[in-house]
Amino acid sequence: MLIHDAAREAHVAARRPPAAALEAVLSALAERFGNRFSRNRSILDQHAHTRTQVRAEAPDGVVFPHSTAEVAEVVRLCAAQRVPVIPYGTGTSLEGHVNAPYGGISIDTSGMNRVLAVHAEDLDCVVEPGVTRKALNQHLRDHGLFFPIDPGADASLGGMAATRASGTSAVRYGTMKDNVLALEIVTPQGEVMQTSRRARKSSAGYDLTRLMVGSEGTLGVITAITLKLSGIPEATSAGICPFPTVKAACDATIATIQSGIPVARIELLDALQVRACNLYSHLGLPEVPMLFVEFTGTPASVAEQTEAFGAIAEDLGGGPFDWATKAEDRSRLWQARHDVYWASFTLRPGAKIISTDLCVPISRLAECVTATQADIAETRLVAPIVGHVGDGNFHLGLLFDDTDPDEMSRVDAFLDRLVRRALAMEGTCTGEHGVGQGKAGYLREEHPPAALAMMRAIKQAIDPQDIMNPGKILPIDG
Amino acid sequence: MLIHDAAREAHVAARRPPAAALEAVLSALAERFGNRFSRNRSILDQHAHTRTQVRAEAPDGVVFPHSTAEVAEVVRLCAAQRVPVIPYGTGTSLEGHVNAPYGGISIDTSGMNRVLAVHAEDLDCVVEPGVTRKALNQHLRDHGLFFPIDPGADASLGGMAATRASGTSAVRYGTMKDNVLALEIVTPQGEVMQTSRRARKSSAGYDLTRLMVGSEGTLGVITAITLKLSGIPEATSAGICPFPTVKAACDATIATIQSGIPVARIELLDALQVRACNLYSHLGLPEVPMLFVEFTGTPASVAEQTEAFGAIAEDLGGGPFDWATKAEDRSRLWQARHDVYWASFTLRPGAKIISTDLCVPISRLAECVTATQADIAETRLVAPIVGHVGDGNFHLGLLFDDTDPDEMSRVDAFLDRLVRRALAMEGTCTGEHGVGQGKAGYLREEHPPAALAMMRAIKQAIDPQDIMNPGKILPIDG
Repeated sequence: MLIHDAAREAHVAARRPPAAALEAVLSALAERFGNRFSRNRSILDQHAHTRTQVRAEAPDGVVFPHSTAEVAEVVRLCAAQRVPVIPYGTGTSLEGHVNAPYGGISIDTSGMNRVLAVHAEDLDCVVEPGVTRKALNQHLRDHGLFFPIDPGADASLGGMAATRASGTSAVRYGTMKDNVLALEIVTPQGEVMQTSRRARKSSAGYDLTRLMVGSEGTLGVITAITLKLSGIPEATSAGICPFPTVKAACDATIATIQSGIPVARIELLDALQVRACNLYSHLGLPEVPMLFVEFTGTPASVAEQTEAFGAIAEDLGGGPFDWATKAEDRSRLWQARHDVYWASFTLRPGAKIISTDLCVPISRLAECVTATQADIAETRLVAPIVGHVGDGNFHLGLLFDDTDPDEMSRVDAFLDRLVRRALAMEGTCTGEHGVGQGKAGYLREEHPPAALAMMRAIKQAIDPQDIMNPGKILPIDG
Repeated sequence: MLIHDAAREAHVAARRPPAAALEAVLSALAERFGNRFSRNRSILDQHAHTRTQVRAEAPDGVVFPHSTAEVAEVVRLCAAQRVPVIPYGTGTSLEGHVNAPYGGISIDTSGMNRVLAVHAEDLDCVVEPGVTRKALNQHLRDHGLFFPIDPGADASLGGMAATRASGTSAVRYGTMKDNVLALEIVTPQGEVMQTSRRARKSSAGYDLTRLMVGSEGTLGVITAITLKLSGIPEATSAGICPFPTVKAACDATIATIQSGIPVARIELLDALQVRACNLYSHLGLPEVPMLFVEFTGTPASVAEQTEAFGAIAEDLGGGPFDWATKAEDRSRLWQARHDVYWASFTLRPGAKIISTDLCVPISRLAECVTATQADIAETRLVAPIVGHVGDGNFHLGLLFDDTDPDEMSRVDAFLDRLVRRALAMEGTCTGEHGVGQGKAGYLREEHPPAALAMMRAIKQAIDPQDIMNPGKILPIDG
């Protein structure tokens, strides 16, 4: 899984741009962008990936553009010298997406943080890629609208589009693929183009918008995003419900969705994750599998949903269902849910963490999670589990000691088994984190050769010089 | 708009496969498929497009495969001789999608009509491309599930995926792009591949599923479709509401959506369309702009939605809102809505009809429809309007006498203005019918050159021989 070895080092050395080409780009950028360009070591390091098991690989320079035209200038400079371009949002991605394995220029979009338009009647808005989801929702509040996709981190919307992010609200609102209406991108040739128009739907040719969503910067740089918005619901209630087993919690989720309850969020925490949350957030919950749920709508509809869910939970051996309509109680619960990453460390202070990401058909979720728990125990690892259970998507916070070679080899073997278990159940190696470098090798097992060949053909057709975030998504040696 | 002229005839002659290559394919297919292959004139003509203004162009042969493996065989035979392949579902498309401008082999998928799997817990199913939406919903009834996309015609699900179809329920359930989880396709090289897995969501590489949805057979033949399903709602009510103006009806629609009412269908009929429906279905309605609406959910939620909509309509000068929860009354109303195509002929018996398809941001819809009505009057045409108003999507049933050259030239100029008016309002030349041959020329105006170049590059990369439904989507002379 850790994709660094001698063969790869040789490949990287061969693929780096010649020193003269790189220097030409670096000096042109320094001249053009002044103090909005940096080769400072700590700035370079900040723009490489450091939060996960993927080794950090810093770019050669970082540029901070303020406009689409400036991004296009940077890409044209890089294209002329075949120097890699790596788009950068907030750096919260988890699979090495912002690394620069072959060096090159990181384009930091944090200065492109304007909300360009809000069309309240059309329930859409146009934002620059550096706008974060929290900043956007702050901006939208007065319109009675919000952008529902919530991956937990306060990620940039450009990064969320690039990784096809989703999170806790996907069960109701879908993923970024369902909530991006159009993109402005800078192509690998440095041209600015709109992928589609602002109409709510279209059948006018290939769906370039969806091709770009989830392409992780490998086909172009996203410079503006037209997003679907939703009305802020009139009423919200949230609650937690214990279950005797993971299977019972998953069955309750399936029954909830089948019965048409438009649940806004439904999250599974396994017993160990509940324990971590108790330690971190002092929740005092029974340490058994638990569903965190949220209902939204009119007050009458919320009451009806809450009651219907409570009945389903009870039928399946769960409960008591404890629910809260007070905003402060809801906030406390969901804050605890959002803090699971940090809470996990309480189980093994000083450990490193890998946040994994699998998704299987929901009918296989209980089986997949239960088998994974058994594997964790047998492999003597510590790994609490949290799941966006309405989508069949789950994460492990795998805590490990990277100075212990024996443990590291157990971790590597476990992670391979984890992915293969999901793939064997018609699942995917990543539900929402994306491929980056960390999952690239698994695409060979997930997709048939013809599909991977088609992805390569598309990449080659759109970015024949392979300058756009090279070394991501597609396995490097095949 | 009617894209037949001398230059095109020359282009077509140059592009047709050599007679020997074509004969090789025809005789191989005859030998392999026996009476499931035909060169009979009437069979060929049935497989060319005849329902619209686009001239019929018949294929050279029609094959009726029963399996994916057989489709792959046909494609490999054609690929070896560079003979065009044209996938065919039910022939209900409207823009010449199933025409064979360069000849070739029509693959009629009507014999591939099995529902391969229903996964009730996962709310998905797998179907062959020849299954029609009504047949699927019949099959699903016992599961308490349904497939919500409803384009009016009883189209094949393969065709609906290929054209990115939607229809009256898109306001609630989205379009085919939102309801296809995965596709099995036969590539232009004759390989069978799955575009993605059955997991509800994935970030594992480029979104080949969405690239294929709406690609109109130009990138491969769809041989199986994994579809999202929805639970049959517990309760349904439907109603009709008159408005003084199109603007008032559109404003009521915007307010309905903004206020979060999860309306299941909301359809605009202009006064002339209501008149046609009165004549055809004996509805006895006042001949003013009218919204047809449908609400679904729990009985309490449906009652709440109905009341909320009635209040909004009244606020905006509409009403009285006449609603019906009895299934027979609902059926009568929606039957009338679905019959608008046939009803339109009552306005001008013996005329031909063009069904147009535009989509604009909903905030511009009233302006676009009103300007179009004025243009219809000034151009002395007869064209009732019906709109999927929640999406900003509308259709004209333009009735014309194709033996009158003066009228035909007015029709052509009007259709150009119609598309350009929508494009000028950030709209699209097709919301749901697709491009086919009829709209190909407009893509140059809808998309920037870089986007069209990207579509061409993708087509070239995936189908370098240009054998998959050639002459569709991409403008032929650019």
